[in-house]
Amino acid sequence: VHECPFFLPSRVLNYNTFIKTSGCVVPILHSGFLEIKREYIFPIIEKKVFESQKKDLLNLGIGDVALPLVEPAAIAFKEAIDEMQKRPIGYPASHGHFELRQKIHSLYFEKYGLDLTDIFISDGINSDLGDLQEIFSQTALFGVHDPSYPVPQDVCLMAGRSKYLHVLPTSFEMNFLPEPPDYPLDCMYLCTPNNPSGTAMTKDQLAAWVKWAIKHQAILIVDAAYSDFITQDDVPQSIYQIEGAKQVAIELRSFSKSAGFTGLRVSYSCVPSTLLGLCDQKNISFKKLWAQRMASKSNGISYPAQKAALACLTEEGLSATLKQVHHYLLMARRLKDAAHAVGLKTLGADNAPYVFIECPQGFSSWEFFDYLLDKCAIVSVPGLGFGQQGDHFIRLSGFIGEDVCQRACERLTSLACFV
Amino acid sequence: VHECPFFLPSRVLNYNTFIKTSGCVVPILHSGFLEIKREYIFPIIEKKVFESQKKDLLNLGIGDVALPLVEPAAIAFKEAIDEMQKRPIGYPASHGHFELRQKIHSLYFEKYGLDLTDIFISDGINSDLGDLQEIFSQTALFGVHDPSYPVPQDVCLMAGRSKYLHVLPTSFEMNFLPEPPDYPLDCMYLCTPNNPSGTAMTKDQLAAWVKWAIKHQAILIVDAAYSDFITQDDVPQSIYQIEGAKQVAIELRSFSKSAGFTGLRVSYSCVPSTLLGLCDQKNISFKKLWAQRMASKSNGISYPAQKAALACLTEEGLSATLKQVHHYLLMARRLKDAAHAVGLKTLGADNAPYVFIECPQGFSSWEFFDYLLDKCAIVSVPGLGFGQQGDHFIRLSGFIGEDVCQRACERLTSLACFV
Repeated sequence: VHECPFFLPSRVLNYNTFIKTSGCVVPILHSGFLEIKREYIFPIIEKKVFESQKKDLLNLGIGDVALPLVEPAAIAFKEAIDEMQKRPIGYPASHGHFELRQKIHSLYFEKYGLDLTDIFISDGINSDLGDLQEIFSQTALFGVHDPSYPVPQDVCLMAGRSKYLHVLPTSFEMNFLPEPPDYPLDCMYLCTPNNPSGTAMTKDQLAAWVKWAIKHQAILIVDAAYSDFITQDDVPQSIYQIEGAKQVAIELRSFSKSAGFTGLRVSYSCVPSTLLGLCDQKNISFKKLWAQRMASKSNGISYPAQKAALACLTEEGLSATLKQVHHYLLMARRLKDAAHAVGLKTLGADNAPYVFIECPQGFSSWEFFDYLLDKCAIVSVPGLGFGQQGDHFIRLSGFIGEDVCQRACERLTSLACFV
Repeated sequence: VHECPFFLPSRVLNYNTFIKTSGCVVPILHSGFLEIKREYIFPIIEKKVFESQKKDLLNLGIGDVALPLVEPAAIAFKEAIDEMQKRPIGYPASHGHFELRQKIHSLYFEKYGLDLTDIFISDGINSDLGDLQEIFSQTALFGVHDPSYPVPQDVCLMAGRSKYLHVLPTSFEMNFLPEPPDYPLDCMYLCTPNNPSGTAMTKDQLAAWVKWAIKHQAILIVDAAYSDFITQDDVPQSIYQIEGAKQVAIELRSFSKSAGFTGLRVSYSCVPSTLLGLCDQKNISFKKLWAQRMASKSNGISYPAQKAALACLTEEGLSATLKQVHHYLLMARRLKDAAHAVGLKTLGADNAPYVFIECPQGFSSWEFFDYLLDKCAIVSVPGLGFGQQGDHFIRLSGFIGEDVCQRACERLTSLACFV
């Protein structure tokens, strides 16, 4: 047996103090997990809905798809299973199926001078948002904006980064889109088109971030989960449309929302070869570390799901996904119009399937949530769930069917006008 | 714009030093990634094989399946896709499909008094091995054994734990199975049945680890990827057969090797409610943090893959997987017999589909690799790839078809006897 070669201050301390008093197994766990102070709103929503005993509820609260898997994907999926029954397919390539990477590259990234090997297939933007922070030093500075999809903030806290995390508040006047600060960060998480506000950064706004990142040697991680929903001319489909973005930006995209893929788990990241970082006093390729992380910590993404994703990028697949995108946007716009009809102010519904509604004077977001549940039997999501700055807003989702949308609009427009 | 509230020593240092000299974007990256000093052997193997220009190569080097997906899984998979075409399935539950957790629990864990909610579905043991270390404090002490599956060591190094990582060497005489040290650790990774040695811990050996863990308040993470291959009576199918294990052990299992699932990505962890840890001076449930990590950092596991996994646990599915297990074990045993016939000493092939062969006198593992490649056109894996202690061994894999096995045995037995 070998002598312990470690320096064990906290370990020995805990050992002496706790084993005797508790008799329990007490290894030291990561205190970062206790740093998340934000209330989890979905359990509260569930409880409120349950207690309301409302019948004929219309759920406009969910950010999950309402249409089934597109047909070309389903066909490809089943073919992949037939293939796996004929011969063993084995572990998927750790950076993704070559054909899928190739197709994604040629469709979306080649035109910006990015390399095929910059594309990495993953099981979801959620995972990538969490995994990417691992590449940064434990003392790297992170920025997130508020309100926004809460995962970047949560994963930074869980990793013990609370002292190094800066939250940039935004406002209705800013379209809830953050502006670059006048100090440096190592990494800024951007979510555009934004969940929950439904708004998206214009070319000028993205260019300001790229300029800031180049000046301050920061990396931008762009959560572009809703990029397929962009319709506005001055909103770029990709940050790489901005000159210089290749030096500073990572873009994350998904099949989840536009192809009915939430249950299948396929997304991808673009991590340009030109992205550099400092590691042990040496300049090093960010992509090299990302590739190493993927090779060591994952055994690849489900093979048939990748084949199904590939089918979404054929002419037929793209047309089927576009149809779903149009449907969801249409639903969001109808909800927006209904809100306007009773004097409510809104954002969104142009480049993302969400409508962000300002609560009427005197309502907090939970109060307006209760009001809509009580008067219309409509379930919304309080903006507070996406950060402190979302407190006077609620989010309605366009991920619904025609029928639900029509009834929701009828109920909304029957409310007394709020002006 | 908000003033920067951070304390920025390293940041400002880097900023001043590097932006001017390099003109590059240099955020601080995690130096843990540079700590992995072990050579990646598979690229070297590929190069050697390519340069050998051998024809009729027999690849006994891979740990990936050689038989196709079992039929019940394929059928269930396609049914799940049909279902997804009819109605949106949406995000999978973050801790796994309820029916699958229920089935796993009733088959394997209920008898040990574990709870259904202790079961978490994941996309692979590989991911869980990496993700579980996140639950421990940055200064927690980790142990791994050598030779073993290298991921636990790699993920600890990547996370910056090199100062807190202890490698327990093992030897041929120990069956390459580690014994508990006489000092405490917070977490010990065990791989049993062991890859690469093919050996597995007996009840007494596991009991010694459980006793050690209880005494030293440590958590055992047991990689039981090959548990379906256990045939020996005194080797427990699960660590929970050992009294007290529920207080200290996490068990990881997979569908990969026994059901042809490597390309599909489904595994599971059992994290007992009774496992406690110390977090910010308070006793806290390990499982609670693991559940929180899963809910925040993942959006669940592919729905049809989970339905396919469920089909593997029906009577028909279990019989189909058992057939594959028997086949692989038979192949491994034939390889073992062929090695014995020419005087080689071996381990394994009883509780895992691997044969670990001691290199003849005077051969390092790379030299014996070269010898087998040259004389038999057989590709093996040098034990060195699994740690320093594997240096005088090579691993042959039973994940092959009948025909490959027969030809490999013929070539091995035609070698001059090594005694």
